[in-house]
Amino acid sequence: MWQQIELSLKPRARGFHLITTDIERAVAELSPVRRGLLNVFIKHSSASLTINENADPTVRNDMEQHFNQFVPENASYYRHTHEGSDDMPAHIKASTLGSSVSVPLTSGKMNLGMWQGIYLGEHRNYGGTRTLVLTVSGE
Amino acid sequence: MWQQIELSLKPRARGFHLITTDIERAVAELSPVRRGLLNVFIKHSSASLTINENADPTVRNDMEQHFNQFVPENASYYRHTHEGSDDMPAHIKASTLGSSVSVPLTSGKMNLGMWQGIYLGEHRNYGGTRTLVLTVSGE
Amino acid sequence: MWQQIELSLKPRARGFHLITTDIERAVAELSPVRRGLLNVFIKHSSASLTINENADPTVRNDMEQHFNQFVPENASYYRHTHEGSDDMPAHIKASTLGSSVSVPLTSGKMNLGMWQGIYLGEHRNYGGTRTLVLTVSGE
Repeated sequence: MWQQIELSLKPRARGFHLITTDIERAVAELSPVRRGLLNVFIKHSSASLTINENADPTVRNDMEQHFNQFVPENASYYRHTHEGSDDMPAHIKASTLGSSVSVPLTSGKMNLGMWQGIYLGEHRNYGGTRTLVLTVSGE
Repeated sequence: MWQQIELSLKPRARGFHLITTDIERAVAELSPVRRGLLNVFIKHSSASLTINENADPTVRNDMEQHFNQFVPENASYYRHTHEGSDDMPAHIKASTLGSSVSVPLTSGKMNLGMWQGIYLGEHRNYGGTRTLVLTVSGE
Repeated sequence: MWQQIELSLKPRARGFHLITTDIERAVAELSPVRRGLLNVFIKHSSASLTINENADPTVRNDMEQHFNQFVPENASYYRHTHEGSDDMPAHIKASTLGSSVSVPLTSGKMNLGMWQGIYLGEHRNYGGTRTLVLTVSGE
């Protein structure tokens, strides 16, 4: 059984954001699978998806600080600079973190660890609406 | 055909560890698929899964050195510090490396390259037992 | 419905390369699926796959510059040095970027964003031919 939907996320500020509830809500509208997989894919090259700690907002804050430090703006070797100083770093962060996550589905639900949530990495200053494709497979 | 099991890994020291054999053994107990995919998912936000060189232990050692250098402990901008100096770096490493790997299954076996193995990235000093979810799909 | 093929990529120079067309051509030879997933897996531990901007070649150039800066050659702590100064960095880049990408398939085609393409990350100076496994599933 294969199910697929697109989901629009409202614009969010630059940084990391928990979107587990958005995903859960969308998955709950599909037919439940006893065992399977959910693939969440982001259709953008300057934002990312990753799985990390779901409780303490300082984790998302420190992630943003870390990636700003280690993927600097205005590096002397950047040539792709015409879309703003946040653009090339956003592309590098997108590839470092990834454009999709896979989550096991078990008894109709995402089988995440107790402390895991799904993060949107918004790497542009004004990224706007972001579109996801959710693909649910299983039986 | 969808099959799914949970697998507990014994506690391992901080660093990178080959777990290909653990995965192979678990997959061998399931019904073989001629062509399909294996998804291995780790239910923790301070450990990771990745695929890399399977022969020389110095690769795992150098990986650990590299990520300790480029995801430092005690960075001045960390706010998430109450669980120890190894905790926030562990979260960043988990997102940089990823929480799942997908491996093609061909003629009943993982279709890895000759030099590829599956690594557990244990990013805490005392991470304890780690739980994986293995999802096998195919025909 | 599960389909799987291996695809050989011609040797490419060290750096990032758009391979979307190579993948599209291979997928077009398989039976189309209305909704499903494509997994592309690279059978090497010193090259990677990632999804990023598909239009401006300076993005691929800046990615290469960035990863050379932040995954240095000849780091004092490397022990895995006998295969050349580009080898250990290649392994680290492979794990940072990843060895597979998943792309939703919709109405027979890859459902990428308008600005997304699939990159080969060739991290060796002379990597030679690289082998991919493409797994298509869906209905």
